[in-house]
This record gives sequence, structure tokens and C-alpha cells, in this order.
Amino acid sequence: MMNEPHLQTVAWKHNAIRLIDQTRLPETLHYVDIRGLKTLWQAIKAMKVRGAPALGGTAALGVYLGIKNARVKNISGLMKIMDEVIAYIGSSRPTARNLFWAMERIRRAAQRSSAKTVEGIKQLTFKEAQKIIAEDMISCRNIGRFGQTLLKDNDTVLTICNTGILATIDYGTALGVIYSAVKQGKRIKVYACETRPMLQGARLTTWELKRAGIETALICDSMAASLMSQGLIQKVIAGADRIVANGDTANKIGTYNLAVASRYHNVPFYVAAPASTFDLRLRTGKEIPIEERPGDEVTKLFFKKPIAAAGIGVYNPAFDVTPGRLISAIITDRGIVKAPYTKNIRNIIKG
Amino acid sequence: MMNEPHLQTVAWKHNAIRLIDQTRLPETLHYVDIRGLKTLWQAIKAMKVRGAPALGGTAALGVYLGIKNARVKNISGLMKIMDEVIAYIGSSRPTARNLFWAMERIRRAAQRSSAKTVEGIKQLTFKEAQKIIAEDMISCRNIGRFGQTLLKDNDTVLTICNTGILATIDYGTALGVIYSAVKQGKRIKVYACETRPMLQGARLTTWELKRAGIETALICDSMAASLMSQGLIQKVIAGADRIVANGDTANKIGTYNLAVASRYHNVPFYVAAPASTFDLRLRTGKEIPIEERPGDEVTKLFFKKPIAAAGIGVYNPAFDVTPGRLISAIITDRGIVKAPYTKNIRNIIKG
Repeated sequence: MMNEPHLQTVAWKHNAIRLIDQTRLPETLHYVDIRGLKTLWQAIKAMKVRGAPALGGTAALGVYLGIKNARVKNISGLMKIMDEVIAYIGSSRPTARNLFWAMERIRRAAQRSSAKTVEGIKQLTFKEAQKIIAEDMISCRNIGRFGQTLLKDNDTVLTICNTGILATIDYGTALGVIYSAVKQGKRIKVYACETRPMLQGARLTTWELKRAGIETALICDSMAASLMSQGLIQKVIAGADRIVANGDTANKIGTYNLAVASRYHNVPFYVAAPASTFDLRLRTGKEIPIEERPGDEVTKLFFKKPIAAAGIGVYNPAFDVTPGRLISAIITDRGIVKAPYTKNIRNIIKG
Repeated sequence: MMNEPHLQTVAWKHNAIRLIDQTRLPETLHYVDIRGLKTLWQAIKAMKVRGAPALGGTAALGVYLGIKNARVKNISGLMKIMDEVIAYIGSSRPTARNLFWAMERIRRAAQRSSAKTVEGIKQLTFKEAQKIIAEDMISCRNIGRFGQTLLKDNDTVLTICNTGILATIDYGTALGVIYSAVKQGKRIKVYACETRPMLQGARLTTWELKRAGIETALICDSMAASLMSQGLIQKVIAGADRIVANGDTANKIGTYNLAVASRYHNVPFYVAAPASTFDLRLRTGKEIPIEERPGDEVTKLFFKKPIAAAGIGVYNPAFDVTPGRLISAIITDRGIVKAPYTKNIRNIIKG
């Protein structure tokens, strides 16, 4: 029996954003209270909080944090500050769609609001942020409910990065599918790719899955294809940072590599994400901005002892794009989408 | 112009095996003198010396180290000790063919020798070991000479693990091909896969290539497919730990993953190795023993701070097998071999 994996990754507590500091896992489950915008920006950049849906919730609360003490004369003054806050938070990480989606949603709610006072808009912003967080919890459970139908009893599932509790508000996308399948009584074994350079798979996914009592083996990213060739993997499920109109999906660097290996070995490759991860304004993955992160993440493990010669070049993209044609199905909170993606994504996301 | 990359990874000096301690790179170029068989075994196991051809040279000197002080009455007593030494050294790492090849060659030389005294056999053993080392230097230059014809001016080459000076006696297999191409005046850029878990690409290849003045960018292993999809890689060259009759090739874990990605993107995938890496007694890669190494290599970076939850499962094979059908050509010291491999390998290795 699975241990219920409840935890809340992002919450508003004591007039601050309370986050699990994910850089301290698996050693310590430590919470940080964030009271300033710059601290928030740094926490996002340093990946104290990460995972597209968790970033959505964090950014939503961040907008409120950024405007709550604004001393302005009128609503248009407040909206100007809100725009600055949104631009500032948005400059932290460019790829995750949910970050922008959440802040745009709050901005739109504020614009459309019938509130007549600055205080009224502030309150509305807070409520909308809380709503985004509450909805994410429901979304994840829906993703799990739909996605678990794709997993069979005794399946071994390969996954990358962390797509569980810690990547969302409290349940997960790709890991949520696994949690749901296990709750249905299916025996699922997981291989977790360690996910270089920041090792979210090793540090976070193994911690979460162990906590939930799910059998997990950690592998280096380069081992995945070898496991597939041995017939050890029945399904691959990844999360997503942004899914565009044709199904092309940006996710943690290495996801594309798994999709290619899955295709070669005829292993189904699934993506799991809420509707808020979709960006239908972009037609193909080529239009997705890909964050390049500091070379230090590769050359020094957690910025400590050097593991490469000094002064060499490093290429450190944080994400890659998996073309829709390599994705067997996209598991959303509104149902499972299959090819042809341009048509079927539009139907489920806009409909 | 390239800096001449001369260094000697393995040598007999002052009555000891002198090795570059590769676990201390890239920080320090430190030599260790090995005077005992147990120390040698541990140095091999801990990867102070690694790389199939370097292991061949080391094991050859190791046989001499193991018998040189043997106090036996006759040659058959010495041969018994030699067999024990060979079995003991061979128990350190099962996959690298050259390790066994070198020791078998010495044993055969001793058996066939006309030497009549224990001392004579000891001297013959020493000479044969020195010959193996000298021949490896020539082999590597031949591999480079043949292999460089496959590289064009302005090619960008992706490589995995370390296959250079440090993996051989002094020049390299896959990196030797690159050194030779650069020496011919070709402009070659290299992407080095960091090569988890032991990071030979990050620690050793970047150090070697920087020393040689070759433009190098370090990437995480999971990034390779993404680079190929962007058209950034013209060729992939890997080394080999063992190549069997049908071309199936065991090499550092992750090599197979690169071969699959290369095939998907129509990038030529080459293997470079001396004749001593071939094992024609085995028909397919399924027969190659694959070393599984301690899980600690994955869960603790260099056995220090944990990067994964305590007590989880780990799968840590040190090698994988790339089927011949995914290999565009095998670059040997006797020439370039292409498919059909079973026939063409036999011709070049036995012939």
C-alpha cells in the first residue's frame, strides 16, 4: 500500500510565501518564508522552487507579494506596479509556461474586476493566486486519474527530472500518474533518471518515491537506452514546461533524448501536464525560448569541487524540445490527447 | 596549431609501475608508483588507471610485478604463480578485453619461450610487457592515421568518456583520431559528454583537449541528442572496451544511447580501437560480461555528499553494448572496418 504523498510545496503562510527549499533535499525537508520580491526571484533562479506548475503557484503568490504593500493613489497606479512585478518575476526563468500563465491570469482578473479600490484589487489578486493553487491540486489529481489508465499492473516506468509533489503544489504530473496507478492497486516500479546537471531526479524524485513507498531505482541519464534495449522499460512518462499547438514539448534537457530512445525501442513515451502548460500562441517547438543556465552547474557539482578543466567551454541548456511526432500521448487534466496534435490539442485546451 | 599531447600514462620506473593518478585530475597531474599487486588491483578498481589500452599496458607490467620476486624452484612453479597473478588482476574489471589480452599474450610468450631459467622467464615477461606498451603507442598512431580520413575540415565531433592519452599509453583511440585530424590541419571542434557516473569526459577529456589546444565544450550526457537535432554534430567517435566477432561493441555506459541517437539523426557513429580490443571468441555482444559498479558512484558524487535518498535502489552498469548495426565503421590500428562486420572483422583481425 502506498503512503499518501501529501505535502504542500508552495503556500501562503504568516504573510509570506512558504516554500520547500528543494536545494536542501534529500538531506533536509526545510521550509523558507519569502517576504521580498528579490528573494523570490533568487529562489526561483536557484531552483529552491522549480517544476512548471509549482512555479505557476509561486509566481501567482509573487504577484500579490509584489503589490500588497504598494502605496499608490489609484487602481491604474497599482496595475502599473503589477506589470513591473510580473516582468521582474518573468525574467527569472523563460521556458516554463505556467509561470507566465499564472501571472497573466491574475492580471486579467484584476483588469476585468469590478473592484473599485486599490485594496479591493489587492484582495482580488490574493484570492486569484489562492484559486490557482487550489486548482493545481485538482488538475494534478485529474492528470493522475486520466493517466493511470495508460499503466498496467507490473509496468516499469522510466521518468526524468522531478514531476511529483515538489514540481506542483502537492501531487504531481508524471509522478501523479504513477501515484494514481499505485493507488488503484497496480504494482509499478520506477526507474528515475538522475537528471543532470541539477540532479532533480536523484535528489527529489527518489526522495518522493521512497516516501510514498514506491519501488525505485536510480540511474544515470545515459543508461536509459540500455535499459530499454534489455526490455526493462514498459512506459516513459515525462512532465512538460511548455507544450505548443502542434504537441512539441519543452521539458528538462534529456527528455528529447528519452523520446528518441523510446521511439527506437517502441516504448510508449507520454507527457503529463495541466492545461496551464499549453501555449497555443506558439505553433512549433522552435518558437519556445530555451533557458541557458550557468556553465558552473556542469563543471562544478553544486558549485563546489571542479569536475572539469578550468576555462573550457560548456553548453548548458536547461530544456530541450521533444517533437509531437515522438510523443505517444499527452496526459492532461482534461483528458488524454493523441495525434494529430494540432487539432486535438486545440479541441481539449480551447474547448 | 595543436600542442603535441605527449604524456605517458603507464610506465615502468624505478622498479615500480608509474601511473598518472586519474582520480586526481583535472586538479593535479599526480603520479603514483605501484610496488605491490594489491595496490595495483585497487588502483585499477578505483580507476586511478582506466581505459582499455591503458589497462592492457598496466596489466602487462602487473604480471611482471607479481612474479618478479617469486622465489620458486623451477619454471613450472613460476608459471603457477603467474597464473594466480593473472587471475587476480583479471578479477579487477571484467569488461575491458585488453586487460586479458595483454596478460594472455605474456603467458603465451612465457610458455613458448626457450628460456631455461626462472630468471630468464622473469626477464622475458618484463620485455613482453614493455613490447605491449611500445606497440600500443604505435597502434594509437595508426588508429589516428586511418581514422582522421573520416573527419573533414570544420567537423564538430561528439565523444564520450576518455579515449585519449589517459586511456592508452600516450595518444588515444577516438581522441587520437581527433589529434591526428588536427595535426593534418583540419579544424575540429569537440563536444565532450561528461560521462556519468565517474565523469571521465568532464574530468579527463576536457583536461586533455584543453592541454592540446583543441576547442572543446562540455555537455551533460543527456544533451547529446538535442545537439544532434540542431545539426551541431557531424560525427560521433567512441572508444571500445571489447569488440566481438559481429561488431557488437562494449564501451562506457551511454555509448549505446549515443549510437541510437546518431542513427535517428543520421550522424555517422564510429568506434576506434586497437586490434587488442577485439575478442573473436565471442559471437555477439550478449556474451560480453558487463561490470556492475557500486551504487555509491551514482548516489554520492565521488563518495561524498549524498545526492539521492538513502537506501534507494541503484542500477549502475559500467558499460553497455552497441550492436554492430548501429556502428558506421570501426577504426582499428590495421585499417577501417565496415559492415558486414562478421566477415570484415575476421579478415582484418585474424588476417
